[in-house]
Amino acid sequence: MHRYRTHTCGALRPSDVGETVRLSGWCHRIRDHGGVLFIDLRDHYGRTQCVVDSDSKAFKTADLARSEWVIRIDGRVRTRPAGTENADLPTGMVEVYIDDIEVLGPAGELPVPVFGDQDYPEETRLKYRFLDLRRDKLHANIMKRGAIIDSLRRRMREGGFFEFQTPILTASSPEGARDYLVPSRVHPGKFYALPQAPQQFKQLTMIAGFDRYFQIAPCFRDEDARADRSPGEFYQLDIEMSFVTQEDVFQSVEPVLRDVFLEFAGDKRVTGEFPRIPYAEAMLKYGVDKPDLRNPLVIADVTEEFARDDVEFKAFKGVIKSGGVVRAIPATGAATQSRSFFDKLNDFARAEGAPGLGYIVFEDVDGVLTGKGPIAKFIPAEVQALIAAKTGTKAGDAVFFSAGTEAKAAALAGKARIRIGDELNLSDKDQYAFCWITDFPMYEWNEDEKRIDFSHNPFSMPNFDREDFLALDPSESEKILGIKAFQYDIVCNGTELSSGAIRNHRPEVMEKAFGLAGYGQEVLEEKFGGMLNALKLGAPPHGGIAPGIDRIVMLLCGEQNLREVVLFPMNQRAEDLMMGAPAEATPKQLRELHIRLNLPEKQG
Amino acid sequence: MHRYRTHTCGALRPSDVGETVRLSGWCHRIRDHGGVLFIDLRDHYGRTQCVVDSDSKAFKTADLARSEWVIRIDGRVRTRPAGTENADLPTGMVEVYIDDIEVLGPAGELPVPVFGDQDYPEETRLKYRFLDLRRDKLHANIMKRGAIIDSLRRRMREGGFFEFQTPILTASSPEGARDYLVPSRVHPGKFYALPQAPQQFKQLTMIAGFDRYFQIAPCFRDEDARADRSPGEFYQLDIEMSFVTQEDVFQSVEPVLRDVFLEFAGDKRVTGEFPRIPYAEAMLKYGVDKPDLRNPLVIADVTEEFARDDVEFKAFKGVIKSGGVVRAIPATGAATQSRSFFDKLNDFARAEGAPGLGYIVFEDVDGVLTGKGPIAKFIPAEVQALIAAKTGTKAGDAVFFSAGTEAKAAALAGKARIRIGDELNLSDKDQYAFCWITDFPMYEWNEDEKRIDFSHNPFSMPNFDREDFLALDPSESEKILGIKAFQYDIVCNGTELSSGAIRNHRPEVMEKAFGLAGYGQEVLEEKFGGMLNALKLGAPPHGGIAPGIDRIVMLLCGEQNLREVVLFPMNQRAEDLMMGAPAEATPKQLRELHIRLNLPEKQG
Repeated sequence: MHRYRTHTCGALRPSDVGETVRLSGWCHRIRDHGGVLFIDLRDHYGRTQCVVDSDSKAFKTADLARSEWVIRIDGRVRTRPAGTENADLPTGMVEVYIDDIEVLGPAGELPVPVFGDQDYPEETRLKYRFLDLRRDKLHANIMKRGAIIDSLRRRMREGGFFEFQTPILTASSPEGARDYLVPSRVHPGKFYALPQAPQQFKQLTMIAGFDRYFQIAPCFRDEDARADRSPGEFYQLDIEMSFVTQEDVFQSVEPVLRDVFLEFAGDKRVTGEFPRIPYAEAMLKYGVDKPDLRNPLVIADVTEEFARDDVEFKAFKGVIKSGGVVRAIPATGAATQSRSFFDKLNDFARAEGAPGLGYIVFEDVDGVLTGKGPIAKFIPAEVQALIAAKTGTKAGDAVFFSAGTEAKAAALAGKARIRIGDELNLSDKDQYAFCWITDFPMYEWNEDEKRIDFSHNPFSMPNFDREDFLALDPSESEKILGIKAFQYDIVCNGTELSSGAIRNHRPEVMEKAFGLAGYGQEVLEEKFGGMLNALKLGAPPHGGIAPGIDRIVMLLCGEQNLREVVLFPMNQRAEDLMMGAPAEATPKQLRELHIRLNLPEKQG
Repeated sequence: MHRYRTHTCGALRPSDVGETVRLSGWCHRIRDHGGVLFIDLRDHYGRTQCVVDSDSKAFKTADLARSEWVIRIDGRVRTRPAGTENADLPTGMVEVYIDDIEVLGPAGELPVPVFGDQDYPEETRLKYRFLDLRRDKLHANIMKRGAIIDSLRRRMREGGFFEFQTPILTASSPEGARDYLVPSRVHPGKFYALPQAPQQFKQLTMIAGFDRYFQIAPCFRDEDARADRSPGEFYQLDIEMSFVTQEDVFQSVEPVLRDVFLEFAGDKRVTGEFPRIPYAEAMLKYGVDKPDLRNPLVIADVTEEFARDDVEFKAFKGVIKSGGVVRAIPATGAATQSRSFFDKLNDFARAEGAPGLGYIVFEDVDGVLTGKGPIAKFIPAEVQALIAAKTGTKAGDAVFFSAGTEAKAAALAGKARIRIGDELNLSDKDQYAFCWITDFPMYEWNEDEKRIDFSHNPFSMPNFDREDFLALDPSESEKILGIKAFQYDIVCNGTELSSGAIRNHRPEVMEKAFGLAGYGQEVLEEKFGGMLNALKLGAPPHGGIAPGIDRIVMLLCGEQNLREVVLFPMNQRAEDLMMGAPAEATPKQLRELHIRLNLPEKQG
């Protein structure tokens, strides 16, 4: 007989009745039914009800056992008495009568119970993470995370990708966040950086000729924590491909994500073919570049309508005159809502810094679509009908308006769209709604510094004829600001899973692109010299993307907090309370690393 | 037609003749045969011979192309002229006549050529790693590395293991090497450590109830570089299992390693069932705890023989009297070696600090085994026969002797065994010879500090009755030094791939184990408090191992240097010459991290 177990705690079935077995596991729950002890023995694979009474020589030891003690039992499998079966457990038809017992690992008093659903403070849960992880839901989430990663990996390999490991002790990477630095012992005064992403290395892997790269890559950003981003480290499904267009990236990545979501979505639907929405269209229709398409509402531009001479609503007219726009957000079925619904939306708008949200409620008056509400009287019926047509609203619906500069009106409309969708419960939540956002602008106007700057990633290829691009003069700001990049985002349920791009692999185009944003050759050389060198020695066209693993797992586990899908997360203050990290270093360590502390002065 | 390619450079076959195709790749080699250009176009998948002459409108551009330019060509597939086929290439029966060409990525002058086998200085190769990686052998090694890791992963999953990700920004781990530290921005004066191994986290994963853990885990040790260890980071196949004995670990790990080696060994043999050799036996027979079993020589102890009254060799007798031993190393077939063979071995011994290696050469003199050589005359024929029997030597062989304290005699004999095996070419190199080394001593005598200390890992479970162990008194040194641990090594061809152990999961045994080594409770609490806490709250028996991935890949690629099997390695001075790491940090960064530099004073 094996030293610890002949079966796991999830294995026994009625066909095992009569067998002598050995099980090991944790005492999940112990019930004392007057001289008869029921021990639910738990391990990774399941639970088995074990029974002992005073007829057994094991009784005395069993009676000592407490919750979460680890024990080994020998016993006989028997059918549970009629009426005591548990159909919810695969082992629920049988129990094991304990003949022998051994305590393998006793447990002291538990700071967090494992049995039961009671909630505990985050700090306690994290300090005793090994206990918290024994709880069903967290255990299941972590296993699901592993299965999702396995599935991603398998699908990537099946798609012709190869996995590589890129360095973790490396040089600073230009991802825009703060680096974690690692002092070098061998090179006094110098530091490694942990990669914010393996961006440059995956590009170099393409330049080295490997064609199809992926990595379940740990990434490190020293940013303050958010619920959906761990302080410190996170993982991304890092992908790069050579000799591809943007379309090839979509065709490679879309089936991987769709099929992984289908595999783990349970009953929820998953978008079949991901819609592609140009950035400008997303900003118009959804007021945001990561639209939640579960929400069916679509914003429309009604600037033209409000600009008409026969519309007399002066507030909007003023906005339009000074170059602004008016956006209309439909509110399907809102006509039956009480006054407080409309008031709440106005309050929300004011909290967002807008004067309020004008609105029209459409009613059917004798077969004629008729707008009601505070501003309806300023808008002739004909224009109301145009607005209704543009927003797809009918009698029984309402339309809200957001006016201002294009950026502000769009942003407010986007938030109002979400708010209205939530209030009216319009979203079908039983789905994972994906889309691609495409055609991001290459540059944007930096109002603070009154100059053109990169709007996202300076390493994306401009979607522009190369010769024309090289011939651009920095003074042609309108033309430059109109340039789109081969840059895209993948979005699911309003969460941006990743940005991606076709990279700029031509050094002369790279230099020009930096030049147009006012960066000299020396900036490029200093910051990205290694990359630039590589581009000058035979670089293939290439591009990629890097969907966030933790976010994918959060979506598929239905969790709002990373802590629920990461094995050993840090707390929001970037501390590991269980292992005591970060911790003080010894003077010898600091000396060896050629650094000393520079502590903030203590407050008196 | 696809923007870049209809086929890869490894795809075309005679069945494609007549097709119009598009290929993209690197100009591997360009030959100008008087107005006809032959371009071997290369990508990740293979090579295709492309041809262009002045009849083609593509000629002029093609004529500009140089080695390692990335080009796209359109052309017609045709059969190569008879006699010019290349049977070594899968595409060797066909060529593509170029109708159109586009330069996708020009290349300047190459600091390292890609075509050809010429060797280049390490620094140049590393600075232009992306070029070096384009070379056939390195490209193949890196792909093989990926395939080996995929295979390890698949086999682990098939064996019922689950993959987890443990933290990289964490607390210092007790692996005995120097930590890499990461200053915390949020917690002034405190530091994270990069894990030397996820040892504590994998144990905590078991204590959390996950049963079967593995991870292709990045590990970090700030040690000076060696050929078989990268400066900085390396990967291990980290494994841990609950409710297991040492035998279970062997049964789980052995098939994974054997089958991965069988898969990638080519024509080489792989050990079927790994022999298990207790540490003491290994030290006796091979003079080392990582024996290369390709070498057939087995050392024997001949102390008893040399201690006999009828043996008159005084040097050894003196050693034996002062408590030393004599070890005999057979040298199969050495009798025919010239004098210089024996002299070289004596020189080697002296270089190792020994007075020399005595030896006997056995000859057949009229059917009688007869020892010759400088010390044979001191040893009667009867004893010579005993020595021959113990060492398995016959006429035509020789036996060398190593005498000294047990440790020194064993170590010298072990080195001599390797030396003799190499000189006589006795090893069958066409194999991967595995073994387990078991029964490591738990403690050893620290001669410097005159006290008992842990001999390897303080966290291994002693192979000793628990009650008896708890009852040990520190004064019982002989008993304590005789305790074996459930600790083992896996060795292949003389390379230690990993240590492993059944862990000490009982806190009271842990405290006792530390106590016997003279460490107080406070040391245990301070250094391993997190772990100790966890052991007190229901820990299962568990154990594991962590074979080094880089070493496995080196063995299977037949490489002596890690640089040949790591995608982007650092140099021996822990620098990334391509990306420029480590590098100076900005004053702002240092300020944010609450540190300042403490540079060594410049030499005047």
